[in-house]
Amino acid sequence: MTDALHPFDRALALEADAQYPDLFHGATSADYWNMVGPFGGITAAVMLQAVLRHPQLLGSPLSLTVNFAAAIEAGAFSIEATPVRTNRSTQHWMLQLSQTDANGERQVTSTGTAVTALRRETWSNVDLQHPSAPAPAECEPMNTSGKGVAWVGQYEMRAISGAFPTKWDGSGEHSRTQLWLRDAGQRPLDFPSLAAMSDIFYPRVWLRRATPVPAGTVSITTYFHTDAEQLAEVGDGYLLGEARGQAFRNGYFDQSAELWSEAGELLATSNQIVYYKQ
Amino acid sequence: MTDALHPFDRALALEADAQYPDLFHGATSADYWNMVGPFGGITAAVMLQAVLRHPQLLGSPLSLTVNFAAAIEAGAFSIEATPVRTNRSTQHWMLQLSQTDANGERQVTSTGTAVTALRRETWSNVDLQHPSAPAPAECEPMNTSGKGVAWVGQYEMRAISGAFPTKWDGSGEHSRTQLWLRDAGQRPLDFPSLAAMSDIFYPRVWLRRATPVPAGTVSITTYFHTDAEQLAEVGDGYLLGEARGQAFRNGYFDQSAELWSEAGELLATSNQIVYYKQ
Repeated sequence: MTDALHPFDRALALEADAQYPDLFHGATSADYWNMVGPFGGITAAVMLQAVLRHPQLLGSPLSLTVNFAAAIEAGAFSIEATPVRTNRSTQHWMLQLSQTDANGERQVTSTGTAVTALRRETWSNVDLQHPSAPAPAECEPMNTSGKGVAWVGQYEMRAISGAFPTKWDGSGEHSRTQLWLRDAGQRPLDFPSLAAMSDIFYPRVWLRRATPVPAGTVSITTYFHTDAEQLAEVGDGYLLGEARGQAFRNGYFDQSAELWSEAGELLATSNQIVYYKQ
Repeated sequence: MTDALHPFDRALALEADAQYPDLFHGATSADYWNMVGPFGGITAAVMLQAVLRHPQLLGSPLSLTVNFAAAIEAGAFSIEATPVRTNRSTQHWMLQLSQTDANGERQVTSTGTAVTALRRETWSNVDLQHPSAPAPAECEPMNTSGKGVAWVGQYEMRAISGAFPTKWDGSGEHSRTQLWLRDAGQRPLDFPSLAAMSDIFYPRVWLRRATPVPAGTVSITTYFHTDAEQLAEVGDGYLLGEARGQAFRNGYFDQSAELWSEAGELLATSNQIVYYKQ
């Protein structure tokens, strides 16, 4: 009965190929559809899921880079997750998501690399300043149903600052957003959902310019600073997210982001480079 | 006569394979040797150079991720740079650097992805605050010859703050370094040298703890915000570099960095995840 599954778990469902251990088969999810393809975060999550499903997996996710090479069509896809190098405590993965086109040819739509690692307890410290923020209950839920894209409705977001522009009048002055977020349907946090949530911030150029120019992520890299035990403590609680643009220049800008637990632990840092027009 | 070449150009020399257009052959450089292998920056640079040498190249570098999967031995290597997807204005690359081991088997030592792109003039803006710094001439040159590793001597570095610790007494309080840098031997800036310089900052954990624990980059991602025209304006001038650690946890930390021109333009932003012990 797949009906009982959370939409995120349905979107992440992969079937291991009968012949090749590096190959997994899945399908796009209408629940996480964006304007002209899947939400980039769900693509990153399902590519990471192929790594996590691999029989030779060593350790847990440390870094993930996903490049959005071409639009993904609604329907079936395959992910090849190849452990090209396994060391004593790290494992290096090359990733490709592909679809078969109308002519029966395989087209690569997304590429990536990942590193998984065994961690040992060491001296630990966070140098990034933790953002001060009012509690989630004190922040207005963002209306995530009216944006015309399905994936937004899968998340509960409560803006602290830098909410989605309500006037497209070119009045933007900064590119920083702070928000509380979690799955709209309760689901315990795990590495794939953390990968997806790292891509939750709408394009910084929209906020910076209060102008809805065409924009789309080209490449995202997320570093994971957490482990299964800490994720279990977070459970289905809120994450505090912050993102800001850095350099906007001639069609591309980068944005950096962090995801903190409500208890104040830094779970992931993420960067992406984004295409924009005009 | 290769004697007339800059050490960086000698390190980047690649021979196109006679048979496979995606394959290039090179060799490690003693000039950029680190403790147990090449300086990570030179490896990133030569992997980008394979992209730039490829006959099917579209545009100029936008993003580069390099994963350091295994130690590179002194000697010959091959780089496979495959343009897996070419769009109208972006091109997606998968990268592998490999060496043949003593048993004649091919071993992948480094993996990566890159995106190259055609850029068009658009609204542009830098949201990151430009660091205020005294002029290069007012900053002491760091003694880069006595660190026991060759690559450091290939750069002129002038510390503004966060210089290499002089006392390993556990007294560290922050992880931020600002410095002026350029090639020790004059050489006009280009994309490969920008890729290399993005990795110039010594491990932040050493500064943060004033303790020389074993540490090494696992993965680096650099976003390029510049073009050939701007690079030509920079020429062999100084770059203003800044880097700081973010989260240090159980054996891995991330550090973010920026490289600015002396004229104040943001040329590259870079992030890496680094292994450390203890």
